[in-house]
Formats: sequence, C-alpha cells, structure tokens
Amino acid sequence: MSSTFGRLFRITTFGESHGGGVGVVVDGCPPRLALKAADIQAQLDRRRPGQGPLTTDRQEPDTVEFLSGLEEGLTLGSPIAMLARNRDQKPQDYSSLNDIPRPSHADFTTQAKYGIRASSGGGRASARETWARVAAGAVAEKWLAAEFGLQIVAWVEGVGEIGPANVDPVSVTREMVDATDIRCPDKPVAAAMEKAVKAARKDQDSVGGVISCVCRGVPTGWGEPVFDKMEALLAQGMLSIPAAKGFEIGSGFSGTRLRGSAHNDLFVQKKEGLGTLTNRSGGVQGGITNGEPIIFRVAFKPPATIGVAQQTADFSGSETTLEARGRHDPCVVPRAVPIVEAMAALVLADLALIQRACG
Amino acid sequence: MSSTFGRLFRITTFGESHGGGVGVVVDGCPPRLALKAADIQAQLDRRRPGQGPLTTDRQEPDTVEFLSGLEEGLTLGSPIAMLARNRDQKPQDYSSLNDIPRPSHADFTTQAKYGIRASSGGGRASARETWARVAAGAVAEKWLAAEFGLQIVAWVEGVGEIGPANVDPVSVTREMVDATDIRCPDKPVAAAMEKAVKAARKDQDSVGGVISCVCRGVPTGWGEPVFDKMEALLAQGMLSIPAAKGFEIGSGFSGTRLRGSAHNDLFVQKKEGLGTLTNRSGGVQGGITNGEPIIFRVAFKPPATIGVAQQTADFSGSETTLEARGRHDPCVVPRAVPIVEAMAALVLADLALIQRACG
Amino acid sequence: MSSTFGRLFRITTFGESHGGGVGVVVDGCPPRLALKAADIQAQLDRRRPGQGPLTTDRQEPDTVEFLSGLEEGLTLGSPIAMLARNRDQKPQDYSSLNDIPRPSHADFTTQAKYGIRASSGGGRASARETWARVAAGAVAEKWLAAEFGLQIVAWVEGVGEIGPANVDPVSVTREMVDATDIRCPDKPVAAAMEKAVKAARKDQDSVGGVISCVCRGVPTGWGEPVFDKMEALLAQGMLSIPAAKGFEIGSGFSGTRLRGSAHNDLFVQKKEGLGTLTNRSGGVQGGITNGEPIIFRVAFKPPATIGVAQQTADFSGSETTLEARGRHDPCVVPRAVPIVEAMAALVLADLALIQRACG
Amino acid sequence: MSSTFGRLFRITTFGESHGGGVGVVVDGCPPRLALKAADIQAQLDRRRPGQGPLTTDRQEPDTVEFLSGLEEGLTLGSPIAMLARNRDQKPQDYSSLNDIPRPSHADFTTQAKYGIRASSGGGRASARETWARVAAGAVAEKWLAAEFGLQIVAWVEGVGEIGPANVDPVSVTREMVDATDIRCPDKPVAAAMEKAVKAARKDQDSVGGVISCVCRGVPTGWGEPVFDKMEALLAQGMLSIPAAKGFEIGSGFSGTRLRGSAHNDLFVQKKEGLGTLTNRSGGVQGGITNGEPIIFRVAFKPPATIGVAQQTADFSGSETTLEARGRHDPCVVPRAVPIVEAMAALVLADLALIQRACG
Repeated sequence: MSSTFGRLFRITTFGESHGGGVGVVVDGCPPRLALKAADIQAQLDRRRPGQGPLTTDRQEPDTVEFLSGLEEGLTLGSPIAMLARNRDQKPQDYSSLNDIPRPSHADFTTQAKYGIRASSGGGRASARETWARVAAGAVAEKWLAAEFGLQIVAWVEGVGEIGPANVDPVSVTREMVDATDIRCPDKPVAAAMEKAVKAARKDQDSVGGVISCVCRGVPTGWGEPVFDKMEALLAQGMLSIPAAKGFEIGSGFSGTRLRGSAHNDLFVQKKEGLGTLTNRSGGVQGGITNGEPIIFRVAFKPPATIGVAQQTADFSGSETTLEARGRHDPCVVPRAVPIVEAMAALVLADLALIQRACG
Repeated sequence: MSSTFGRLFRITTFGESHGGGVGVVVDGCPPRLALKAADIQAQLDRRRPGQGPLTTDRQEPDTVEFLSGLEEGLTLGSPIAMLARNRDQKPQDYSSLNDIPRPSHADFTTQAKYGIRASSGGGRASARETWARVAAGAVAEKWLAAEFGLQIVAWVEGVGEIGPANVDPVSVTREMVDATDIRCPDKPVAAAMEKAVKAARKDQDSVGGVISCVCRGVPTGWGEPVFDKMEALLAQGMLSIPAAKGFEIGSGFSGTRLRGSAHNDLFVQKKEGLGTLTNRSGGVQGGITNGEPIIFRVAFKPPATIGVAQQTADFSGSETTLEARGRHDPCVVPRAVPIVEAMAALVLADLALIQRACG
Repeated sequence: MSSTFGRLFRITTFGESHGGGVGVVVDGCPPRLALKAADIQAQLDRRRPGQGPLTTDRQEPDTVEFLSGLEEGLTLGSPIAMLARNRDQKPQDYSSLNDIPRPSHADFTTQAKYGIRASSGGGRASARETWARVAAGAVAEKWLAAEFGLQIVAWVEGVGEIGPANVDPVSVTREMVDATDIRCPDKPVAAAMEKAVKAARKDQDSVGGVISCVCRGVPTGWGEPVFDKMEALLAQGMLSIPAAKGFEIGSGFSGTRLRGSAHNDLFVQKKEGLGTLTNRSGGVQGGITNGEPIIFRVAFKPPATIGVAQQTADFSGSETTLEARGRHDPCVVPRAVPIVEAMAALVLADLALIQRACG
Repeated sequence: MSSTFGRLFRITTFGESHGGGVGVVVDGCPPRLALKAADIQAQLDRRRPGQGPLTTDRQEPDTVEFLSGLEEGLTLGSPIAMLARNRDQKPQDYSSLNDIPRPSHADFTTQAKYGIRASSGGGRASARETWARVAAGAVAEKWLAAEFGLQIVAWVEGVGEIGPANVDPVSVTREMVDATDIRCPDKPVAAAMEKAVKAARKDQDSVGGVISCVCRGVPTGWGEPVFDKMEALLAQGMLSIPAAKGFEIGSGFSGTRLRGSAHNDLFVQKKEGLGTLTNRSGGVQGGITNGEPIIFRVAFKPPATIGVAQQTADFSGSETTLEARGRHDPCVVPRAVPIVEAMAALVLADLALIQRACG
C-alpha cells in the first residue's frame, strides 16, 4: 500500500534496489505538454549517486525510459510511465544484514510488518526508490513552469553543526546551488560543510543536515482549507522522503517564540495585487497560498548505515557487533535537494489541478 | 474539497462558526465498540474555549449529539455522525473584517480562492472547525485503547521564549498535563508560561508555543513504507491544524546536527521483543513503527487575531490601521493539546486498520 | 466504510432509519452557486413515502435543514451539510425481524458482516438512506443546470410484466413524468402499471420494474478513459441504489444481438459540431461523452419485504414462517425516479470537475 | 486520470498500443504469497489475440516480466510491477484514421477530451490496455484461491442472436469453457456461435455477445453497504471493460418482471450455515455477500472497427466513406472471458481486504 501520492496529479512508484528496475506511473498530467527525456534526466543527474567526494561511489543506471503517455514529444493525457533498470546490485554487500537489523534503518520494521524482507538492501526503504520521485517531480515541474512560470529551488542550509547558510530565497537559482558539491550557495559555509562530510566519511560515519526550499511564482488560492492544506501536504511529502525527521514552513519552530504583533505579515499593495511586507507565513495562510513565495525547511537525520562498529542485537535478540560494509552516502542532503524539489512540485501540481476544478 | 481525512478510518468534517453547527462523520470505525457521549465529551471539554484566564472567554455550545452509527452504546459499523449546534455568534464582532483582511489570517486567501467568504469570522479557517477533529479523534482513541491498550498524551513544551519543559514521555499522564491551566506538567516552567500568556493578553497581543506528544503501546508494523509513512501522515495531520507551522519526530531538527554513530538507536533485547536503547527515531524507522513510543513535536505560531493596532492594507490595497476586536485566544497551545491528540489518534487508527488488512 | 461517493464532487452520507436523523455532507461543490432549500426539497418531495396509493403510507419527516456551506443563498466552497431528523419509527413493526432474517433483504448479510445489526429495520440498507442521495444530487443538479444547462429526466419504463413504455428521450420532461402516479409518461402503459402495483399491494406482495434516464446537454469530453469511464461510474452509482440489479447504457443487452454495421453510430455534421445519426452508444464512446444524450436503464427487483407468508429459516437455522408486517412499498420504481436522477447528477458533476482540472 | 482501480488491493495501469509497452503496478497485494510468471501467463494466454479463427490474427508480445515486488517466488508486500513490451505496431494500418473518426469508437471523444490523440490506434481505448487488467487480475485470483479457495469462471453465454447457452454455474470449470474456441461450454450452442462469428468475419463485419461469470467459495460479509456494494463495484469494473454496455447480477433485468413472493430467496439451513434455496440475488443482498455463488452477466457490443463501408463524416464534418483496414476481432467475447474474470478478482480481493480491516 501507499505507493501512490496525489489526488489528481497522481503518481505510483514501484521497485526495489534489486529486481528488474524502479519506475513510476504519472497519471493526471495534462495533455499537450511538451516533455522530453532531457527534462527528466537533468534532475535525475542531480540525484545520482557517484557525483563526487561527498556521495557514495556506488554507480546506478538511472537513465529514464518513457514507456507510455507521450507521442512526438507531447503528453497525451494518458499515464506517463518511466523506468530505470537495475544492475550491479552486489547483494553480497548486504549479506551481514540478513541476521542483524541495521540500527535506525527499516530492516527490523519491514520484517515486523510483512514477515518477509528483501534479502539485498532495504527493499522499498532503499534510496533507490527516490529515483521515481525525482522523475515524476520533473514532469510536474515542467508543467508548473510552462503553465505558471513557477520556479522551485532547494539548497543545503545546514550540515551537522555547520550552518545555517545565508541565502536569499528571492534570488537563489539552481546554478548557484550547484556551484558547490554540497549544494549550498553560501560558499564559505559550503566549504565548512564539505569538510564536515569528508571528515564523517573518513571515520566511516555519517552526518545529518537541513534543506531549505523556495517556490516562486505560485498563484494565490492553491491549497485546501482543512486537511489538504498546502503546508499539510508539503509536510506529508517531505516526511515521506527517506531519513526526513522534520518540516517547518515560514517561521516554523522559531516563530513560536514571537508575539503575534511581531509575527504577523502586514498587507501592502504590490504591483501584482495585495501582498505582504514580510513572509513569516512562508507563502500560505490558513493552508492556502497568498502569492508570496512558499518557503520551508526539511530536517534529515544522519544516514543509518555506517561502518563504525555498533554494539547492537541481531534478530534473535543476541548481542552482536555490526560494522556495515557497502557503499553508502555519508550525508544525504546534497542528493536530497532534487528530491525535495520533486516532492514540492508534485504537491503544487496536484493542488493546482484541484483549484482549477473546484475554485 | 479536502474535508475528508483518512483512508479506512475516515472522517469528514463540516461547519463554519456561523450556520447550523459543526460536525463530523466518522466512517470505518469497527463495529461493536462500546462508545458513549461521555467518551467524546471529556476531550471536547479540554478543547472548549472559556476554560480560564489563558483562553478566550467566548462561550460555545459544544455538547456532542450522536446522529447515527450507534445503538445501545455499541457502534454498528455504519457512519457515526456527531453534531454541535452553533449559537451566540456575535457577527458584529467581525464587521470590521469585511473590508480589511487580518494579517496572517485566512481572510485574504479564502477570498482569493473562492471569490466569496463567510461574513462572520474565518469560515472553515475558524478554530470552531477543530471541534469536529476532537470529537472524531475521541472515537479513534477509544478504539485504540480498547483494542491495543494504546495511550496518547500531549502537553505544552514551550510558550514564547519559555521552555522547553522537562517532561518524561514514558510516564506523563493527562492528569499531570491538566494539573496546570497551561497544560505543562513541569510546574515551574508552567508558571512562567502562564505569566507569558497573561502578559500577552494584557497587551491585547498573542504568543506562540510548542506541543509535544507521545503515543505509547503502539505495536510494531504500523505505517506504510513510501508515501503513507507513519511520520508523513502525522505530519500532514499536525500541519492541518490551524496555526501549526512545524512538525518533527524523534530527534527532529536537532538530530541533524549529530553523526550517525551518535544518533542511531541500538537494538537490545527487551521483555516484549527486540527494542532500542535510545529513541531518537521517535518510534518509527522507515515510516513503520518499531514498538517504541512515538514522540513528536508541533510548532504553533502566535494567533493572528490581535487587538494591537496593525498598519496594514484593506482588500482594495489602501493603507489602513486594524485593531481587531472580538474574543480571541492569546495562545492556542493549551486548547490545542487535545487537538494534537485527536489527529494522532486518527492517523494511528487509520494505519492500524490498513495493517490489519494488508500486513 | 464506503459511505463516500465521488472524487472531487464528493458526498458522504450517514444515518439509519432510527437514531437522530439522516444526512449528507457535500464536499467539493463550487463556490458562489445560488442554492436554496426549495431546490433540494423539490426532489425530496418526489422521493417521499406516502405520496399516494402506489407507495407505502409510512410518513417520514424529510424537510432539509442546511447545517453549513451556505451564506445568503450562495455556496461558500466549504462542505454543505444537510440533515433530516427521524421520528415515528415504530420499532415494534420490526420486532419479528430480530430472529428471522427477511429473505433477499440485508438482515442476514449485515449481521454476518458486522456481528451486530440495528434492531429496528434495515440500518444502512434502509430506503431512508436514499434521502441523503437525493438531497446531494439536487445540489449537483443545480450546479450542472447553472453551469451547462444540463437536464436529467428519469421515468418508469416497466413494472412487472408491463412495458416497455414508449417515451421520447429527447423531449420528455419531469412534468410529463409526474403527470401519473407511477411516473411513466406513456399514459396507457402507466395505467396498466398502476393496476399491477395495486394488485400486488392488495396481495401483500411486491413487484419489480425498470427505470430509464436521459441526460441532455452534456458536453463532449466528460469521463475518464480506463476505470472511471462515464458508464462505469454510472453503473456503480446505479447499482449502489437499494434493490438495483442491472444497468445498461445505450443499446445495452439488446445491442449484443446486432452486427457492428447495424450498431455503429455514424457521424454527421450537426449545428453544434460533429454528432451521430443514431445513439446506440447512449452518449458515450470509450467512456467519454460524445455530446449526444446519455441514455441508460436500471433494473429494480421486487421489494423483499412482503406480507405474503414465506417458508424460510430463522438465524439459528430452524424452519419458520415469516409474514412481515410494517408499511412497505409494493414497488420502488416511482420513488426511485428521483434517486436515479440524483446518482446521475452526482456522477456527472464529479466527472465535469475532473475534466475541468485535467482536460 | 483514472488509471487506478481499487482501494486497498489497488492497480494502476499504463500503456498505449504504441510506445514502450503496457504494464500494471499492483499495490496492496499481501506479502508471502507464492507467485510465479506462469500464474499470470496462463490467463494472458487466454486473452491473447491470434488464438484461432475467431479472433484477430494480429500478433502481440504478451509475455509478462516482473519488475518488482517479488523475491524467490514470494511477494514482499511492495508493489508488483509487470510489463509487456510492444512491437509490430504497423501504424500505417491506422493512417486512414487520422482524419476520420471510427463510428462508435473512442477516436472522436478522445480528441474532444484531450485536444490530442495517439496517431496509431486507440491509445488508452485500445484492447491492448486489457493486458494489464488480466495480469493484475491473475495476482488477485492467486491470492483469493490461496486464502479462501475461491474460484472464478466466466463463459460466453450469447453471441449475436445465438444463445443463451445452458450452463450450470455450480459445476462449470475453465476446462469446460476452453473446450471450444468460442469459450461456451454448451457445445451445440457453441457451434452455432462460432458459425455466427465466422460469418461476420467473412463479411468484414462484427458481432456482439454476452458473458456470464460465477464466483464460488466467496465468504459472507464482503462488500460495503452503501456506495461500495459488491454489485456496484462489480458493475463499475465490468462497464470499464472496452465495449461493455450492460451488467446485471442474479435475476437482473428479467427479475424485474416478477413479484417479490416469486423472487425472494428463502433461507434454509445448509452444512456450512444459513443459505438460500434459490439464488436470484446472485450471491449478494444489500451489497454484501451471503455465501452463495456470485453470478452476473456482462453485455458486449459488436466491435466498432469493421471493414464494411460506412457513410460517415470526417473530423471536419465532411461526408466520407470509411472502410477500416487493420486486423480486428470480429467478436470480443471469447477474449473477454479472462478480462471479466480479472476484473471480478480485483473487486473481490479489494473488498476482502476491506472486510479484513473493518469487519
């Protein structure tokens, strides 16, 4: 269950890190959208492992193949299915995991839930699954850009104890983000972050981080007033990303320390209509977009799979020491940047369509 | 749209602060559950305005009436509809709002979305809507307690700059929470919080806060591995509460500062099976419960409706000063405690049923 | 479960024949629609029991009360909740049913499903539940008429062995339908039908019938190509009506006897665009409307509750004789006419909104 | 939209007759089910074109490839994705269709809906899409058989004016069905049917037919009482099959001619509990299964694509003559038998899971 996300712009993902491949079916994408593989591949390349010294050196085939939904570069209104084949799974890397559940990983809970578990790696909890999110998100993003001129940019705001980076959400671009391997546009902070990741990697350890994201050009009126608030669906989308542990929109947790008189965003006439002087709301009020940029942050824990020896227990409850082998990311946040953007695009496209229907 | 929450244990809410009343239809509650009005009313009483010096002195009728779904104190498996009538709406309190959208409130976005807006108060963005959540959540909680012995306890952890309170999630009870008006079991901190709320109220201002929540006795295996992760649906549920701006589970944002070797929850044999030594995961790994308590936190901004004069603009874009009258909460967190518990219960009951079906 | 119907124009019904009342929440109705109680009541009056010699003389309160979603006669975009109180339940009428399940009624299956059953009457299987469908359908119909000029007219085509009536779907009106008690616009056939119903009633027996329905003014392009085909959702909607046993669209079962060359609807240029010479397709091709009238038929079995003595078994399996008392319809079809119209309106409104979003 | 079917046992299909392939994602299949390609292929082979003189001689690759969800022959609880590649599309066969919409086909409505249309054949309206239904249905059927010993058998009951066949639903087997090319177990009637199909084929014409289906071994209590009645979801499933125009359960349209005293199924004690003497209900009462076999019928119109010259209009409204070339089935019913079984299995598996959760 639960491999489907969205109401009208709806995706269904499949695939483990072993088996024939990973893929996604995008149902509900409007017809006559110009779409080509390069639109998808650009974001997939940003998600790919093996991009440099900060990510795993594992190589994965990640070239997108369109199986359906397109003809002569235009969407038909029918489901767009996309596939990437698996290969090079090195299941022996995981053989030690058959008996010992990795601490803070999904090995134990998957076994408890299903009474069965993929022998090689994390099954659906694998980072491989995020390929499908990024591919689908790129379709959503293409439509949002074509239809509304909407822009989505995420960046690394913190890594371990380093940060927060100083970044202007109004002007930041993907080019600025990609100028550093760590994907932080604040270059001095980026350098410190990269040092922290490399140190963790050297120690066969891992480190957490925070990603910020801005969505610019969002019209007013998107998001539903009660349970499908814009921020509620963004929160679901973000917390569904592997390793995500927190979400906040606008002023978030820090805003709780303020009084209303200091927190409220006062209205002011702008060129394009009524706007706000400040944006502590993060672009939504009462779950509905107000035309200001949507700004939110996502917390990612340090990856659970580490080489450092851990005193833990095996499935039978016996004490044991685990030193995980395999090729794992010491820090997920640089590769999670396009994943955050993808989930944001999926939520926005879905709520845009709902508003088109019912507004 | 979007007034429905849940897949199998599914609620649909209705009602504005004006009109005939607010209510909820609970569909999917298992049959033969012993349920009486007192089970619901207990939580409704904790949500009620007018509870003391920390909340609005507005009085609302909030007695629950069962319209369907029960016979002789047992659920029938059919939809349980519950209703509370409205009264005493004092719409004149809101007359100034017809022309001036309240900063950081849903007045402007609702108008932008629908091209129409309830004249009295916030429509569906009203706190009145949360009555329905609490009523429905009490049904879910009753079933979870009867079927699994599951306990849910939320408390106020911070108010403005006061906090965090020091509370043991393993032993905290609702009695301890309700021992102070502010609903914080750490009494010295509670006293400081109450002082902060009263000061804000005196200034016709408002203040934000943070709520923590623990769910104890949750079996392993609840939550779906990809988009309907336990933490993802909790995040949606919590961010759908009016004024919520952030969510974190387990170590949350603070955990991003750690390395994996310091963050991982090592396994250890416990009486009831494999458990973890620490609980930075907050009871979920890979979206699925691991048998440890679920622990999460929710950020609430300071209420937008304040009496302090605000230099803002009216709907036409003209500059104006707004001094909102009416009877509003200076701080939502004490009354939001049962709302957080209700949304947690709804998510848990839904994922419990899904696991019963597909596990 | 399952008390919700529709994806965007979505209704949730509640209520048994006992208890506080029956009702419905309509979520997703577009804002700014002029709507008043009389719009709803007109169809409710056509569904009401006690309309004359052909229906049960049971009296039910069925006046609609709006609980939410409207202000000054306009919809707000928020859920429209409608309620009718119960009264005069005469549960003693049903006391014999506690031990003996009525043949071909839901008594036995409800008990088997839930392990509990409403003591008075059929619970959710009661005809009382259809009040909610008709109320919600009237909202959908109002919107379809306002937005598209769409018209929906159903009539009784057959009763027992009488029929089919000769009715022109292009010109038939509700006035013509309501000109006879049996709701058949072919007056000689109507007279024979009424005679058949009265004869069945006199014998404390019941009789089945067939309803035809036409939807005129439906734009092209409504209905989704695979599982949510127009005819598929109409079929679900119609078969969800109590006592419905069959559905056919266009030529239906009789069309299976033809060859393609005799069955195909040839295209021809019409004033408003490409149309078809004949309409064996019933207004849909490949699940999508083609601009011609939608025409379908629904089969209703004879009501299960009859006074004629039946040799059957009680819940324990012992042989017994059942002579059901109570006030029951000898034939459901005259009262089912507005129910069929309501379900058609709900399907059409839902698919109209989906097309508005994704087309 | 709408390429998803089911609530808990949920499938999502994709693919046109051109493009990379057709496929399906089955989400919600319980874990630890033994499943192998041969389980799927057996039903796919019955659906395959080119089976003999009664079907099109078009050859399609239809070998199933599992992409995910299985390991060592057991389901993992994660989505099972299945794919068949396309090939040999002969798009030139369809070139005449670019300007002239085939009468009673989806060419015109698809263009009206999306403003774009696949150049080769019917896009999602192609019979190729049913590959995905049969593959997914075979998974559902495997689970239903393993868990409940449930059996589903469909057969051809009528072709054109031939029929109805005389078949005992209690004892009919797939072997008996497959003993004739037309898939009718009543051999003399089967011979007449085959003659009728061959005659239509010789005339480059087509002919309609009726399929009956029985589901044996269904427990009591499946199906939800209001909108998701067993017969309502079966009706949706069946009417979603290309060319389906009607559905009836149990006595269906013919039962409308009876009185209640002649129609009711009287209860009687059976070995396995309370049963009924007759089965005019078709195994469901009030939308819920009663333990008797589910019996229903589906009407299929004559295929729209014929070689006979048709006087019709092109997209611009000009009169023209269409003589469709290409390789098309003269009658869909023999190949539709496994499709009907597949849709039945999908509905039953879905309602079985829901009953497991909420019953």
